[in-house]
Amino acid sequence: MQNILLTNAGKRVALVRDFKQSFKGQGKIVVTDNWSVAPALFVADEYYLTARIDEKNYIKDILEICEQAEIKAITSLMDPDISVLAGAREVLTNKGILCLFPSEHTAGRCLDKYKMFQFLKESRIPTIATFFDYADFMAAYQKGEIDFPVFIKPKSGSGSVGAQKVYTDAELQLILKNAAQPYIIQEFIEGMDIDADVYVDAISHQVVSIFLKEKIERMIGGTSKAISIKDTVLFEKIKQICGHFEFCGPVDLEFLQVGSEYYLYDINPRFSGAYLHAYACGVDFPKLILNNIRGKVNPSQVGEYETGQIMMLYPDVALVSKHDLKRDYRD
Amino acid sequence: MQNILLTNAGKRVALVRDFKQSFKGQGKIVVTDNWSVAPALFVADEYYLTARIDEKNYIKDILEICEQAEIKAITSLMDPDISVLAGAREVLTNKGILCLFPSEHTAGRCLDKYKMFQFLKESRIPTIATFFDYADFMAAYQKGEIDFPVFIKPKSGSGSVGAQKVYTDAELQLILKNAAQPYIIQEFIEGMDIDADVYVDAISHQVVSIFLKEKIERMIGGTSKAISIKDTVLFEKIKQICGHFEFCGPVDLEFLQVGSEYYLYDINPRFSGAYLHAYACGVDFPKLILNNIRGKVNPSQVGEYETGQIMMLYPDVALVSKHDLKRDYRD
Repeated sequence: MQNILLTNAGKRVALVRDFKQSFKGQGKIVVTDNWSVAPALFVADEYYLTARIDEKNYIKDILEICEQAEIKAITSLMDPDISVLAGAREVLTNKGILCLFPSEHTAGRCLDKYKMFQFLKESRIPTIATFFDYADFMAAYQKGEIDFPVFIKPKSGSGSVGAQKVYTDAELQLILKNAAQPYIIQEFIEGMDIDADVYVDAISHQVVSIFLKEKIERMIGGTSKAISIKDTVLFEKIKQICGHFEFCGPVDLEFLQVGSEYYLYDINPRFSGAYLHAYACGVDFPKLILNNIRGKVNPSQVGEYETGQIMMLYPDVALVSKHDLKRDYRD
Repeated sequence: MQNILLTNAGKRVALVRDFKQSFKGQGKIVVTDNWSVAPALFVADEYYLTARIDEKNYIKDILEICEQAEIKAITSLMDPDISVLAGAREVLTNKGILCLFPSEHTAGRCLDKYKMFQFLKESRIPTIATFFDYADFMAAYQKGEIDFPVFIKPKSGSGSVGAQKVYTDAELQLILKNAAQPYIIQEFIEGMDIDADVYVDAISHQVVSIFLKEKIERMIGGTSKAISIKDTVLFEKIKQICGHFEFCGPVDLEFLQVGSEYYLYDINPRFSGAYLHAYACGVDFPKLILNNIRGKVNPSQVGEYETGQIMMLYPDVALVSKHDLKRDYRD
């Protein structure tokens, strides 16, 4: 059986369900979380509770689960977890487990928005002007290189939590002064907001699948409405961009298109929350993963989907009795 | 057929599905929205697109739909819509339609958090100290009646959008200065956060059903995890509180419990987003509505559910082709 482990699955009920459909009869979907009431746990074939990723037992827990559940591949659904797992790539690979996350080096870049900006600039990949801190921003502001409004985000944020538009210097100073964590400051650009779900083959390291969508509605936590589109120019750019990184498996890239320019502004080296859209349109990454587990290289299927398909996310409900939990929900 | 109209259904896919289950064979679930890509539209038995609630054609649209779809009852799923519909209660009632929303007077109070505070204070219902504006707050602050941190919210907000904890006077002044809409300032209290789904019988005007849950996790937009509880003291308090208002049908009340005191801090005179929890535990408001449509008074079923049932919300996905929309998604 080609069992796969999805770590820190949280609220990804629909993704687990998609995996189960594609893996049916071929492998079990095993998931983890550190909270006993993460809804994705209850739709999986098997689930385990682990330590938190910042606790020293975390990797030990993961290795034990891999052993016990006969895991053949592993991927993470939570940003900071990716760096931790990437640090354990060698020990996982030595156990014959396919690691569907980037190299430690690439993971470190993706999770630090300022490092990412510097790397994109060096690599001549168009991106949004980003400043490390207030002093860095002020130097450029005084030279007339940037003006308000600006966009600020936590340096290692996820799902647009804490991101906001700032209109004045006074407001900017106050927010940065009171901030519990460091922020980056970005140029505010308006354009067409495009999201790309990409699969980088785990054997050939080539981009074999791309699904593009234009965002229609954004909520805290990600895109909640989008429409599938195709753009052959962007398909080629994405293949080039991915050549600069050591990705492996699912990646999510976010672009702002202004005229003929595509500004890459975020990279999540994992299944994005809105990957559900791609799957619903037949772009089946779990199937590509199954092929990779079996040692098969996936041929390119870039652009094999219908355009004009609109995804709409909505909240659904799962119920569990407190008596059926593996651990108290307050722990 | 006892058809019901749910207006501005938005993302309430799961609620529409619950209604369909309870109304099966007895009435159609008809829904509206002003946006052609509201996901709840596509699970209803019938759907209509309307004008926006602030457009002059809105009530005309609703009346036409009621005629065409042979509607017997109507309720709204969006806060500001409730006031608009409440203003049309007489014309709707004259057409034989059961109006499941409060009187115009009560609706006005529920949608203005400061008016609500004043009314609760006059009625001696314990609530959280609330200030109309900065000057009002400062007067109390200088008298030592309140201190930082405080909690601020848009005066007519919904689903905790824009609500935040503020730690200093400088921060408070800046936020209020830059705010696009008026805010109220509230005392910050820590306590057990309890949500009550209440059904006020549309014929007897008595509270006939209450479902209590303790919140476990809150996200922007509402409660995302909760556990069902019972509290006979609070059941009685809720019955008393509802006697001060002209509710009709579903109501959602939010309390902070500190020791033996229950502070009522928000009222939404409609189905709350987390009502799904109550339904999943067998607390079937659609069935109570069906009885009311048929002219039957519901007997009390307060507390008829199991405790320790944990609700977990998660995002799910619906797909529609742009060719199947009744109106362009950009309109």
